[in-house]
Amino acid sequence: MPRTSWSDDNCPIARAADVLGDPWSLLVLREVFMGNNRFDGIKKELRVADNVLSERLRRLIDAAVLTAEPYSAGTRPRKEYRLTAAGTDALPVLHALTVWAQRHTQSPSGKSLRIICTTCGTDSVSGAWCQTCGAAITVANTAWDHPKSPGNFIELASAGARSQHNN
Amino acid sequence: MPRTSWSDDNCPIARAADVLGDPWSLLVLREVFMGNNRFDGIKKELRVADNVLSERLRRLIDAAVLTAEPYSAGTRPRKEYRLTAAGTDALPVLHALTVWAQRHTQSPSGKSLRIICTTCGTDSVSGAWCQTCGAAITVANTAWDHPKSPGNFIELASAGARSQHNN
Repeated sequence: MPRTSWSDDNCPIARAADVLGDPWSLLVLREVFMGNNRFDGIKKELRVADNVLSERLRRLIDAAVLTAEPYSAGTRPRKEYRLTAAGTDALPVLHALTVWAQRHTQSPSGKSLRIICTTCGTDSVSGAWCQTCGAAITVANTAWDHPKSPGNFIELASAGARSQHNN
Repeated sequence: MPRTSWSDDNCPIARAADVLGDPWSLLVLREVFMGNNRFDGIKKELRVADNVLSERLRRLIDAAVLTAEPYSAGTRPRKEYRLTAAGTDALPVLHALTVWAQRHTQSPSGKSLRIICTTCGTDSVSGAWCQTCGAAITVANTAWDHPKSPGNFIELASAGARSQHNN
């Protein structure tokens, strides 16, 4: 039996868990932050079933974390998923998870996700504030060096603002 | 069909989501942080089915986030759940969720969860670093003023270290 919604719970942890406390939703957000924002691209990367992905995208749109913007691919109308302000503000949640996992779990490849403050160019260890220059770490001043593609700095701001795709 | 484990994924967000990307697990951790660390107490607070709670506790123990410590209640052996080092380090994840929900969702009661840095006594807005005194916000220097019991500062360090119960 699915749990009831916690969207009107008095506790903010419960309200946030209602939207962001889901493993697939977190990885969908990771992909959109990295500029992978179309259904087929996300599906390929996450190796997730169509119905699971559709349902998570619907939930994130209902919660105003993502919007779906139409684009044309040949003769078929398609959608591209974009982060809203609430979506971009979920970045510290992904960073807090990153910091936790890097401290308490083992990476099989030995590679970590580097959170780079583009304001000063250094790695951040907190994911919320840059300990070097004191800037708040937001989508506008963060680049990721992700284990999926080490050495390729992905600027999250530009990934969020437009699609990686050319068509 | 349950998803496969992401415990050996190269991405730390996936590895963390494997453990912490679950709404019930997040609320179980919230309770244990607040010193509510026995099965019956957690069940009562979360209004969760026995099997759901047992399964989440088992997962959190398997992931070394909680330990189960025996105690005696009358003639029956019982367990009390304690945060490990990995468990206490999950605090910034709960705080990142708190900050997000307070910015992007509505509290029906209008009350928020105050994250108080006990090093300097001020409210923290980031949940990871105190913007007033510069201390890292950890279980050792954090108190919560929670909407469940407004005005009662709960020191997380003491809640984590011992049970609230006397028996």
